[in-house]
Amino acid sequence: MVLRVTDAVTSDPPAPVTFPNSALFTDQYELTMLQASLHSGAAHRRSVFEAFARRLPAGRRYGVVAGTGRLLEALAGFRFDDTQLSFLADRRIVDDTTLAWLADFRFTGSISGYAEGEAYFPHSPILTVESTFAEACILETLILSILNHDSAIAAAASRMTGAAAGRPCIEMGSRRTHEESAVAAARAAIIGGFASTSSLEAGRRYGLSTVGTAAHSFTLLHDSERAAFEAQVAALGRGTSLLVDTYDVEQGVRTAVDVAGPELGAVRLDSGDLVAQARWVRQLLDDLGNHTTKIVVTSDLDEFAIGLLASAPVDSYGVGTSLVTGSGAPTAGMVYKLVSRQDDDGDFVAVAKAATNKASVGGIKRALRRLDEHGTAQAEVVGIGLSPADDGNDRPLMQQFVRDGSLLQGWTGAAAVARATEHHALSMAELPAAVRRLQRGEPVIPTEYEEVSA
Amino acid sequence: MVLRVTDAVTSDPPAPVTFPNSALFTDQYELTMLQASLHSGAAHRRSVFEAFARRLPAGRRYGVVAGTGRLLEALAGFRFDDTQLSFLADRRIVDDTTLAWLADFRFTGSISGYAEGEAYFPHSPILTVESTFAEACILETLILSILNHDSAIAAAASRMTGAAAGRPCIEMGSRRTHEESAVAAARAAIIGGFASTSSLEAGRRYGLSTVGTAAHSFTLLHDSERAAFEAQVAALGRGTSLLVDTYDVEQGVRTAVDVAGPELGAVRLDSGDLVAQARWVRQLLDDLGNHTTKIVVTSDLDEFAIGLLASAPVDSYGVGTSLVTGSGAPTAGMVYKLVSRQDDDGDFVAVAKAATNKASVGGIKRALRRLDEHGTAQAEVVGIGLSPADDGNDRPLMQQFVRDGSLLQGWTGAAAVARATEHHALSMAELPAAVRRLQRGEPVIPTEYEEVSA
Repeated sequence: MVLRVTDAVTSDPPAPVTFPNSALFTDQYELTMLQASLHSGAAHRRSVFEAFARRLPAGRRYGVVAGTGRLLEALAGFRFDDTQLSFLADRRIVDDTTLAWLADFRFTGSISGYAEGEAYFPHSPILTVESTFAEACILETLILSILNHDSAIAAAASRMTGAAAGRPCIEMGSRRTHEESAVAAARAAIIGGFASTSSLEAGRRYGLSTVGTAAHSFTLLHDSERAAFEAQVAALGRGTSLLVDTYDVEQGVRTAVDVAGPELGAVRLDSGDLVAQARWVRQLLDDLGNHTTKIVVTSDLDEFAIGLLASAPVDSYGVGTSLVTGSGAPTAGMVYKLVSRQDDDGDFVAVAKAATNKASVGGIKRALRRLDEHGTAQAEVVGIGLSPADDGNDRPLMQQFVRDGSLLQGWTGAAAVARATEHHALSMAELPAAVRRLQRGEPVIPTEYEEVSA
Repeated sequence: MVLRVTDAVTSDPPAPVTFPNSALFTDQYELTMLQASLHSGAAHRRSVFEAFARRLPAGRRYGVVAGTGRLLEALAGFRFDDTQLSFLADRRIVDDTTLAWLADFRFTGSISGYAEGEAYFPHSPILTVESTFAEACILETLILSILNHDSAIAAAASRMTGAAAGRPCIEMGSRRTHEESAVAAARAAIIGGFASTSSLEAGRRYGLSTVGTAAHSFTLLHDSERAAFEAQVAALGRGTSLLVDTYDVEQGVRTAVDVAGPELGAVRLDSGDLVAQARWVRQLLDDLGNHTTKIVVTSDLDEFAIGLLASAPVDSYGVGTSLVTGSGAPTAGMVYKLVSRQDDDGDFVAVAKAATNKASVGGIKRALRRLDEHGTAQAEVVGIGLSPADDGNDRPLMQQFVRDGSLLQGWTGAAAVARATEHHALSMAELPAAVRRLQRGEPVIPTEYEEVSA
């Protein structure tokens, strides 16, 4: 069964999901180009656009594709209804011919690319859109917004979960980013290996595991720390996590154990020298008989801080700011370029901008990951014109998401997030171990071109 | 006339604006704290929460408040309907008592703070929420998400327009950030002094001026640069802006002038050494008789690049990535803290966390900007407990947005954006000239406390 891209996707999500109109998440020049190309007739030339990154953020060894599912969902809401058309008409942004074309617009092309969760490298052909120029052109801004944001967060998340080496990471950055970015960031964090999120909307929309107990304000609200802990344990049970650093950490731990007893779930540390503190808090908990009480740390953690805490007796990490801001790389730097289009004879012509510092490689791309006999990745092989030759162990990277306007199933909704999470783990396991090094370096595998045809 | 916060605001916006439900843009711990405080009874204690920044981003001399209007609009959608309640119930995130409280929730408190567009400094009391603990607590995540994102973008925008020194700046960063962040970023950019945006949705939602003409793909689509320019001029008129760097800039300029004639609106340069290029392109345009044709530059500009272009004959700047990522400071770092609450006798008690690296100052705050006899700002004066004394020239900083659950008019919709833009210009004009220095430094005025009462 296939769904039209412009139909709501009702299959996967666990809760009702509506797709708000996304047509005006678009730079004005997409529509003025549409108008000019309708005028010249070139709008109808079959065209291939490609989303790729010329480079990874400085020093990063890999990128992570995320947002594909959100993009396919947003495409279902990409249509020009009265609200959108009236705005464009009232402002005279485009002419009547263009308005009429937009009113009838339904995407009829095909979209393929890397599976969500896949690692990527410079010039990996992450998303390929094949349609008329008109149809592919107007999707540029939406495609880049979603892929650039979500991939930036997933890459940061992946580095953090790598540094955490199996200890659960909890996403709690909603308050540090736009309220809708927060939901997308939680989704991307899960794909990057996070265990759970504090964002309720992300939990609802994508079926993610959510967590949270209490903040300092809860302790300050009560007449004493003990009164606050008693209230929390009475309402949330002994398995809850008590925040012990509002006044004095040692006294906080002692009070927490006194109130909740040996079944206390966890204590949370949110300030100070976390490495040293985690050690003596663990010792204190053990001395008090609370061997199963866990230690959760939060407080401006990033992948480096997590790495430094590896030797400390910490059970889980709560990460906020640096996750949702991409840990120094808040956008993935992908671009969306016309790489091939028909000429008047119907032949495809590879095209590329010539400018020195922004050169692109023209032509439709296909890609595979070259693996050695142990299944370890050796190179990203990009074929120009056709798929590169598989030497036997290789893994093809391109998936089909939309075929002739029909959305293929399995790439949207909550199921897609779970699938992307699994796929990311697989993709990482295949890369050389150096991929997990946090120090600045080069992409962990090189990108090689195989020119099959122009 | 007053509107309930929980009613849709229908007065200001130029186009129909709906307020999507925002209740789950909330960290889970807000609701578990609610449950525990309902259980202990402390939920009903009158409380004061304050949003403030402990420090500015490293080296910044001022911050810019933005997002207040969006926040007040989002509050209108902050209610727990069936969708939200079912999710919370199905997941057993809170108990039945808490669900019943949420179902009835309407904000009945008061909100005051700095006007949108105002400059702020460390510990400025940017937003004050006075209500019960329960009502004020559950708004934390939404308040911080919006203020932290929008203020970060407005601050970057303000530095850029300062560096541009009167030349128009155009926001074109939608593709580098989440699609909804992009709309908020365009709005914040306008408040920070930008002239226009490429984002159509921002134009529609907030009545902003939008611009855009063509990308490289449009040139590559056609059989020659000349054919592309002819198509664009035919469709968009001679006043359009032609992108001249797809192949060879000099030839591009000559072809553009040849096609559009002396009325050509502008040429756009998007790569290479922009300073040198702008100089010889200006000379070439003048030599060709195109004295009124303007030069627009784009290509990874930030405030420093804009400053370096001051001596070049550039007419306007298009800014993308670094604007929407806050130019190195993608989040404003504001926190939302309980600073005062009633005790059992009904007396207000100032409260603050004691942890060494995250100390807060307890007590309700009011603030004014101390001005000298020339109207130049000397200090941010924060009164603890009551308003600080006005020495005659001072400007009070606190505005009332919501009183006893009623939204006061003038702070939302398109009108609020225009008002904030004006207010930002006023606020900047009042600060010492050093505020416009881009080099790293200290806040341009100090924050001083006046303790009026505990």
